[in-house]
Amino acid sequence: MEKRDVAVLGVGMTKFGYHPNKSLAELFAEAFFEAFEESNIELKDIEALYFGNFIGEMTDGSANLGGFVADEVGLKDIPAKRYEAACASSSVAFREAYYAVATGLYDCVVVGGSERLYNAGTAIGTRALATAVDGVYEIAAGLTFPGVFALAARFYSKKYEIPLDELREKMAMVSIKNHKYGAVNPKSQFYNKFGDLKVEDVLNSKMVCSPLTLFDCCPMTDGASAVILTTADKAEDLIDTPIYVLGTGQASAGALFRQKEDMIRAIPRKISSEMAYKEAGLTPKDIDFVEIHDCFTIAEIIASEAMGFFEYGKGADAVAESVTSIDGDLPINPDGGLIGKGHPVGATGTAQIYTVTKILRNEYKYNPVKDAEIGMTDTLGGDFGTLVNIILGIHRRR
Amino acid sequence: MEKRDVAVLGVGMTKFGYHPNKSLAELFAEAFFEAFEESNIELKDIEALYFGNFIGEMTDGSANLGGFVADEVGLKDIPAKRYEAACASSSVAFREAYYAVATGLYDCVVVGGSERLYNAGTAIGTRALATAVDGVYEIAAGLTFPGVFALAARFYSKKYEIPLDELREKMAMVSIKNHKYGAVNPKSQFYNKFGDLKVEDVLNSKMVCSPLTLFDCCPMTDGASAVILTTADKAEDLIDTPIYVLGTGQASAGALFRQKEDMIRAIPRKISSEMAYKEAGLTPKDIDFVEIHDCFTIAEIIASEAMGFFEYGKGADAVAESVTSIDGDLPINPDGGLIGKGHPVGATGTAQIYTVTKILRNEYKYNPVKDAEIGMTDTLGGDFGTLVNIILGIHRRR
Repeated sequence: MEKRDVAVLGVGMTKFGYHPNKSLAELFAEAFFEAFEESNIELKDIEALYFGNFIGEMTDGSANLGGFVADEVGLKDIPAKRYEAACASSSVAFREAYYAVATGLYDCVVVGGSERLYNAGTAIGTRALATAVDGVYEIAAGLTFPGVFALAARFYSKKYEIPLDELREKMAMVSIKNHKYGAVNPKSQFYNKFGDLKVEDVLNSKMVCSPLTLFDCCPMTDGASAVILTTADKAEDLIDTPIYVLGTGQASAGALFRQKEDMIRAIPRKISSEMAYKEAGLTPKDIDFVEIHDCFTIAEIIASEAMGFFEYGKGADAVAESVTSIDGDLPINPDGGLIGKGHPVGATGTAQIYTVTKILRNEYKYNPVKDAEIGMTDTLGGDFGTLVNIILGIHRRR
Repeated sequence: MEKRDVAVLGVGMTKFGYHPNKSLAELFAEAFFEAFEESNIELKDIEALYFGNFIGEMTDGSANLGGFVADEVGLKDIPAKRYEAACASSSVAFREAYYAVATGLYDCVVVGGSERLYNAGTAIGTRALATAVDGVYEIAAGLTFPGVFALAARFYSKKYEIPLDELREKMAMVSIKNHKYGAVNPKSQFYNKFGDLKVEDVLNSKMVCSPLTLFDCCPMTDGASAVILTTADKAEDLIDTPIYVLGTGQASAGALFRQKEDMIRAIPRKISSEMAYKEAGLTPKDIDFVEIHDCFTIAEIIASEAMGFFEYGKGADAVAESVTSIDGDLPINPDGGLIGKGHPVGATGTAQIYTVTKILRNEYKYNPVKDAEIGMTDTLGGDFGTLVNIILGIHRRR
């Protein structure tokens, strides 16, 4: 199938944090209109809406959000679809929106997400998040997400023969880096906070699930994000700096006990990222920076390996050697990632697209990535159940 | 955009009713393998999974189902997407799956849904269903679904000047018809039950929300359904009786208070069905039978008007005059519909496709629709928030 080139026309994102006074639809509207304003289109040009939300039914008593969200932004008649893939909800939606334009089904669509987990509080939030693991065996075994990644850290330590204490120090450097970058991003939940953590601060913060402390974990957040997509041809007529979608990938896995120790090699992520590289005609070496799903410090390390940036077992060293810092060879999470910026689950995927677009347009003033031409996102839904990768660039696919 | 013709290769459906011992993924697998068996393909031919589920997070503590469901049927690596649009979840998924094949993105995909609402019980089920109305204003006002359609029945009576008692008798005839057809369908929740209701039985059954009695309402059900789609060209090589997708439509609306009295004209349904007719190159007169979303008796009447089969205000008469019976001009819900067959919310849309396919193939022995060549489905998500219509036929689109 011959695909059309697709470009990002506009992006929008609310401040991440605590939004007690806005509904899921109202939060989305705030992000939507920021994206709409810079798109130079009219509302009637938007033909379909792709919306990611993880768990509005439990946090807000609100499901069936497609139509309500469309109505809120003045688009009530058009087809509106809600995607749920836990933390990857809006990345799955993005990929579908992209293919709808690429295949010629639509010329212009909006994709985004919103979530209110901070507002839901810890008790409901923890119970809600737990629904993203296998409902039959894993929940019954008491598994929650800190448990999944604590297990991952221990497997990592054992398999790659890195003493747990040494690994914990390297993991802490992920937290220090992402908090440092999040603290200068005005849209972060932790803007102006935790920008100067030391290794000891991370190691000695409250133990959540050994070996993960509070600073190893991302916060649960309220927020929304939106992206307007159109054909590359139209985008070039409408705006000065179209950012092109070069490749996407998605893969799936079952419950954690079926993945076993493969969880630290994250097989679906390998499949998904290779799918994206192939579509883009690129290799990991061509990527200038990445937004990675750092729900926990160890998650960023595992992801950087499965995406092909570092050998298996070497991701922790890369962080320790500053390879993944803004001025390193492969900056990871220059906007603070989930740890520094916050994690409004269903909005996280398209918020990564927001950052990558802003950086590639040279509009990201807080942590610009010098001469960046190609950026990539990585979003994980559940305990490796859904993986999505997206590659964006300043030039069309060759 | 030039679209490829798409055909239904295989369909599967569990018995609808009470399934306490199967998970959402296991239920889906039962329907999937029925569809797979008749498709004459191998598992590796299936490139993507489109899955509809409304509220697994509340009934089963289980969200993020895409990957888990894919893994359960041996398809773990492929992209798996979960769609949620309340009762229209698997119809939205079907439409996306159809376009994926039509546009050439994939050659062969599976779409379906599963739900466990009977098993959840009335308390959790009622709370879960209520999340499909607007979360900010409608839930706070105490609105549940019997309330929505009780309101609709009263608006209908008033607007079309049909005394409520007379309307109730005509509504009862929807219940009698659909229970009669459901009682002979072995996959129905009410197989062998309620096949011989009288008007008085319906009018005098327990009042749920005036004027709706228990027999005006569909039950909340456990069940699953699955459909395998491929290109028309491939289907003709693989099986004897491909059923072709001729047209689809989808439209949205906001909260009920924003629709006001338009709810009984169901504007999104008019937009959606006209979209489907246009794509199919057909008019309502060309449709031989319909599977309509009869969540309540009044819902079937309203739908039959908005889809263009009867003038506004004349749908109730059509039922009373047996126009919508099996041997009438436009049979509606020959499999019992939601009222007679049961309503496992996320599975309902593709279960309608199951029936339409079986009838068009001449494989439906219980209530065959004589010489049927074109059938249509109608699925409503929430209080008119999401509408989907799909037209299938025994010949390719002209």
